[in-house]
Amino acid sequence: MIRKKVIFTLFFMLSRIGIFISTAKLQNSISLSRNIRTVSAIMSKFELPERFKGNEKSVWVEYIQLALKYKPLNLGQGFPDFYAPENVTKALAAAATSENPLLNQYTRGFGHPRLVNALAKLYSKLLQRDLDPNNEILVTAGAYEALYATLQGHTSPGDEWIIIEPFFDCYAPMVNTAGGIPRFIALKPTKTTGKVTSADWVFDRKEMESLFNEKTKGIIINTPHNPVGKVFTEDELQFIADLAKKWNVLVVSDEVYEWIVYEPYRHIRIATLPGMYERTITIGSAGKTFSVTGWKTGWAYGPENLLYNLKVVHQNAVYTCTTPIQEAVAVGFEEEIKKFGQPDCYFHSLAKELLPKREYMAKFLCDVGMTPVVPEGGYFMVANWTALADKVRLQEEEDANKDYRFTKWMTKNVGVQGIPPSAFYSDQHKHLGEDNVRYCFIKKDENLKKAADILLKWKSQQ
Amino acid sequence: MIRKKVIFTLFFMLSRIGIFISTAKLQNSISLSRNIRTVSAIMSKFELPERFKGNEKSVWVEYIQLALKYKPLNLGQGFPDFYAPENVTKALAAAATSENPLLNQYTRGFGHPRLVNALAKLYSKLLQRDLDPNNEILVTAGAYEALYATLQGHTSPGDEWIIIEPFFDCYAPMVNTAGGIPRFIALKPTKTTGKVTSADWVFDRKEMESLFNEKTKGIIINTPHNPVGKVFTEDELQFIADLAKKWNVLVVSDEVYEWIVYEPYRHIRIATLPGMYERTITIGSAGKTFSVTGWKTGWAYGPENLLYNLKVVHQNAVYTCTTPIQEAVAVGFEEEIKKFGQPDCYFHSLAKELLPKREYMAKFLCDVGMTPVVPEGGYFMVANWTALADKVRLQEEEDANKDYRFTKWMTKNVGVQGIPPSAFYSDQHKHLGEDNVRYCFIKKDENLKKAADILLKWKSQQ
Ligand SMILES: Cc1ncc(COP(=O)(O)O)c(C=O)c1O
Ligand SMILES: Cc1ncc(COP(=O)(O)O)c(C=O)c1O
Repeated sequence: MIRKKVIFTLFFMLSRIGIFISTAKLQNSISLSRNIRTVSAIMSKFELPERFKGNEKSVWVEYIQLALKYKPLNLGQGFPDFYAPENVTKALAAAATSENPLLNQYTRGFGHPRLVNALAKLYSKLLQRDLDPNNEILVTAGAYEALYATLQGHTSPGDEWIIIEPFFDCYAPMVNTAGGIPRFIALKPTKTTGKVTSADWVFDRKEMESLFNEKTKGIIINTPHNPVGKVFTEDELQFIADLAKKWNVLVVSDEVYEWIVYEPYRHIRIATLPGMYERTITIGSAGKTFSVTGWKTGWAYGPENLLYNLKVVHQNAVYTCTTPIQEAVAVGFEEEIKKFGQPDCYFHSLAKELLPKREYMAKFLCDVGMTPVVPEGGYFMVANWTALADKVRLQEEEDANKDYRFTKWMTKNVGVQGIPPSAFYSDQHKHLGEDNVRYCFIKKDENLKKAADILLKWKSQQ
Repeated sequence: MIRKKVIFTLFFMLSRIGIFISTAKLQNSISLSRNIRTVSAIMSKFELPERFKGNEKSVWVEYIQLALKYKPLNLGQGFPDFYAPENVTKALAAAATSENPLLNQYTRGFGHPRLVNALAKLYSKLLQRDLDPNNEILVTAGAYEALYATLQGHTSPGDEWIIIEPFFDCYAPMVNTAGGIPRFIALKPTKTTGKVTSADWVFDRKEMESLFNEKTKGIIINTPHNPVGKVFTEDELQFIADLAKKWNVLVVSDEVYEWIVYEPYRHIRIATLPGMYERTITIGSAGKTFSVTGWKTGWAYGPENLLYNLKVVHQNAVYTCTTPIQEAVAVGFEEEIKKFGQPDCYFHSLAKELLPKREYMAKFLCDVGMTPVVPEGGYFMVANWTALADKVRLQEEEDANKDYRFTKWMTKNVGVQGIPPSAFYSDQHKHLGEDNVRYCFIKKDENLKKAADILLKWKSQQ
């Protein structure tokens, strides 16, 4: 009897982690228990190393599965569902089928020459300082890998990193798996009713100050911000810069949405504040810049000595990025640099194109009874859904956090999918995200209208 | 005086690691020393974490610089200088400019559905077992990232990995930076004169056996082998498999050159040996498979429980790979699967196309006085150059290893570039690679002829 129970428990454990044992085998319990002994010996030796434990969960993996299963109108993941600008997609087609066969072969590991030259040209102008394309820029497999190389390359065990919540969800696992310690501070809304904008979400300056100490290695900022849409003000950035200098720490500035800022707000690069270039690593993304998230080409720029550490990690993990895509992105930059300052420059036109979508979404979320946080930048909108609490049967879902239950229930029963913001908070602060949902509005007008129709119809039937 | 010296030393150190201080500033030594104090305080805090130290050097970075400077006929890096197959390059152009805008946007993080389906179809046939596209395959940023995810995801501090020398040079740093300990065993030529082939390079079985112990986590094999070109025999693989089972360790099988095997040899996948699938992670590369090294798309396949660890690393470091390239690679696979077994299938035709190039290179290297190791697979050829020792002025170069001096001197003075194989050995075994040079023969006939002409002309002038 006990033997049977042990076998069953083992069987359950094994099947949970996906080792398949056919039921036919179950009938032969002797051979099964022998198999289990072998398989479980293999397994325990090959389980996840300590440093990764607790960092396995990803909201994306779970919510993409959910979308595949229920086929909702998907306002979850952040990507456009319309055409990317023709000049870059055509440039990729041209690179792939070019006269020059080398455009499909390995290029320079730290960045395709044409691309680092274009990036240096653009950012030299924006930063008003001469960037060296070969030493102050690194091209990576998306901004994601740039963040990874930065946090791996600058974290020794015990180093503390200050992370502002809600945060792009990879920051914390990247710090953890390198042996670092994340210290969290939340942006909090100063109001939650009436007309709320992302400017109403602020960090407490005393609290921020108290996080800096001898063990602090750096602070990660993200402006324009995902998911809140906050565009950090010069005053806020100067406050952070002063603390960074006082405590001699790094600033990692995730600026992947740098071109998506709505009038009258403007994007300020913390690297341009006095004395800050020396301690700042700035991260960008071609996927976000040119609305081709599937191209996964990003970069980091900053002083040579700080980039050195990133290069060692990159050289060890990926080594070199795709050549035709880097070539196409370089072509894209060269063309936009020529048009810079003109209304048809994509860096300016994209936000103009997105503005009516932002207005439209803010309105229909209000109409349905939510309180949206109107973003100053980026293409996400956080909305407080608690006024709808009596219309959704949260008890039908099992997750610990209310926003997970809300978003899952809505996906399954109403057919519109958002992302639960508590995924972007540390365990101890998840409650701060629970009243909200994140929607993405870089979608075709017809799809935004469909979402509005579905939600308003549902509302009217309550 | 002492102060000046300190300043000078600091200045020297700073300038070596690339911090630029203008000479104008030197004239003002007070402000300089203040600057240096600040800069060096910033620096020491931000230097490379311990775990990366000793893993910074890359032969590629150095030799690509060399090629850019001296513009030799480059037989160094392993990539074709001719057109990639039209069906895949056209598929990339088609994906980039497709009717479906989603082909330029984020796809599934563990692999684009169309690509994992194609890979599962191909390898299910080759392995004679049903691979689950969603759980037994992971798509990565090149085979390189697949190796990284494997070694990061399966190494805890103190774990030992057996590495066969010469080895693709990233294996050792990948093990080291994860806290593992590489244990090296060299392939050694049983003869070095007369007609030598890669089959003459073997490992000592007693020595191999002695490396396995309780701390062994796994062994990395590479067949067809870079740089030697060895195609491991079934008997050799069975010997390794038996040890792997006896000691319950993983096998990482780097098979990026799986389709480049010359008659009458054939590629054997160690995962197909009895009881081996359960403990094998096999690595492949679209860049090598379709002669598009610049596409940096690779994969790992193996049992779900072993792949789980890789997924956690991948999700943390890169998250998702480029969509249009994955789509194009999927199209390529679908077409070749249809032609499988027919002579026009690229998987068979590529090696046929390369065979005369192999013969041509082997001949001209012999003519010039070297002893090439004729490869059974892959597109590299290792050649012993020591018969030319009195014709090259090695004393003009400063490197510790003779093959570095030989290859640099030849690049600068003769104009043909190869790679020094000692880069592919551990420190204690570098002498085993010093008599050789590695050349790549996946080059246009006209360029191979140019290389031959240059070398033979140089020889005749001695
Ligand atoms: C704030 C932020 N940083 C980085 C990234 C990753 O960008 P990439 O796709 O270039 O890796 C994203 C993607 O959503 C993001 O929102
Ligand atoms: C043995 C071996 N493994 C892996 C790789 C990396 O392949 P990829 O370009 O797909 O990252 C190479 C590239 O030269 C190689 O020779």
